[in-house]
Amino acid sequence: MILTVTLNTALDVTHHVPRLIPHTSHQVTAVTERPGGKGLNVARVLAALGHEVTATGFAGGRTGTVVRELLAASPGVTDALVPCAGTTRRTLAVVDAASGDTTQFNEPGPLIGSAEWAAFLAHYEALLAGAGAVALCGSLPPGVPVGAYATLVRSARAAGVPVLLDTSGEALRRGVAARPEVIKPNVAELAELTGSREPVQATRDARRRGAHSVVASLGPDGLLAATAEGTWQATPPRALTGNPTGAGDSAVAGLLSGLMEGLDWPDRLTRAVALSAATVRSPVAGEFDPRTYEEVRGSVKLTAC
Amino acid sequence: MILTVTLNTALDVTHHVPRLIPHTSHQVTAVTERPGGKGLNVARVLAALGHEVTATGFAGGRTGTVVRELLAASPGVTDALVPCAGTTRRTLAVVDAASGDTTQFNEPGPLIGSAEWAAFLAHYEALLAGAGAVALCGSLPPGVPVGAYATLVRSARAAGVPVLLDTSGEALRRGVAARPEVIKPNVAELAELTGSREPVQATRDARRRGAHSVVASLGPDGLLAATAEGTWQATPPRALTGNPTGAGDSAVAGLLSGLMEGLDWPDRLTRAVALSAATVRSPVAGEFDPRTYEEVRGSVKLTAC
Repeated sequence: MILTVTLNTALDVTHHVPRLIPHTSHQVTAVTERPGGKGLNVARVLAALGHEVTATGFAGGRTGTVVRELLAASPGVTDALVPCAGTTRRTLAVVDAASGDTTQFNEPGPLIGSAEWAAFLAHYEALLAGAGAVALCGSLPPGVPVGAYATLVRSARAAGVPVLLDTSGEALRRGVAARPEVIKPNVAELAELTGSREPVQATRDARRRGAHSVVASLGPDGLLAATAEGTWQATPPRALTGNPTGAGDSAVAGLLSGLMEGLDWPDRLTRAVALSAATVRSPVAGEFDPRTYEEVRGSVKLTAC
Repeated sequence: MILTVTLNTALDVTHHVPRLIPHTSHQVTAVTERPGGKGLNVARVLAALGHEVTATGFAGGRTGTVVRELLAASPGVTDALVPCAGTTRRTLAVVDAASGDTTQFNEPGPLIGSAEWAAFLAHYEALLAGAGAVALCGSLPPGVPVGAYATLVRSARAAGVPVLLDTSGEALRRGVAARPEVIKPNVAELAELTGSREPVQATRDARRRGAHSVVASLGPDGLLAATAEGTWQATPPRALTGNPTGAGDSAVAGLLSGLMEGLDWPDRLTRAVALSAATVRSPVAGEFDPRTYEEVRGSVKLTAC
């Protein structure tokens, strides 16, 4: 089983409008809702790839109930979310049909109490016993200690479970120091961590800070991976237009599924790049277009750096 | 008891952001939720004025449940909403702290089936038996016949209950022909109904179309009323800055409460203008600032036209 952790789950709401004009009133033409937060996107993609997945983190209030109902309708993901007294946040994406661009509004997450955090830790330790790999994804809700991911990485390592960390800022800085198996920052997160905007140098620097492997996402240019076995850039055959939301989460699912299946790094990277591209071609984060996945998988360009 | 009808109820969500920049991501600094739709705002103001109020209309789905929970927490409003299979819409107001301006996103309402509409009509007839006045407010959800308000006006007149209609477009045009006691259009709605942008002429024309009295809201310039007893303009002592959302609903509450208490037209208009002003000074539609209400009430300027 692969365990995904989403401490700051969300109800992702999308409003489609003909054209966004600030300070006016808009009639929404279509509304969609789905379970959100990076780790839940990763879980749904892993399940679609045929992996057994358990999703944990916090869910509370009315929106927490909706997230759990929608998750129950996602085939193959086991719900192991922990209740909290606060209310799970909503994120609102307003998609502008005229430009195709998205304007995003993210509510603050629920305030997590210290007893809730302690209960989560106990629950997480129990879940680790059955896990083959763990993904720790996204932001921390208010009240969760900034060193939370470092704690979760250490527990996973103590249990012998490889852990991938996908977060940013101080939570990433502290988490890296706890020596996760993989981190997957984007270029901005990597620059914030290392002080370097030069990706090859920055990925190598991030390894020295504690991450066993570093996979940096370069947006439409694919992935750059610095590992003990070598450094590679994996590039999709062409830039794909579409909705990039969730592309990074699909890359995480590709890397973790490859790790679980014992693939070597070049094959893991190829899968991750193809899944990312297939997610850009899907209208919804946490889903991917299977035809694009199969098509791109055969033509990812791999370069040793 | 005063009966308010809100066929297209809503869960009104407000997101406060530091500054709205299209096609970027925003951290929401504060979120509020309240029961929405014009008739529910009117009901809450009437209750705050000490009137017995019953609110009807449709509520369905998860958001319908939330609307009813929030309404139960509003003191003095009796919930007589009718369940529907569709989901009550959300409205999202994004308030920009930099400019104070609001950007609004309105979801479509639930599709009402013909059996649901028939059930509502029976429920409404029963409620009329105990009503001293009725307010019919806002837009029609999909599936409700465009002549709905005309039907509801006729039933109220048959029951001898005075009815105030506050809607727009074709629903207003048909509703007026059924001869309601009062309509309360804004200048744009009045121009659409009568073809005239000159308010005094347009209010008189709207009376000829069937409304016993016409009260046009002139925004910061107050109200213009054409009635059988005379034509007046009621103007607040000064323009008030704030949030105009809900000001029209508070004017409706002022007019209806004055009617129920047997006030003459000048006193009804004074109350309605003062309540509108006090709502502009309140951050939330459906609420008003009592100090502004008392202060403005003593200094509304009334001019016979």
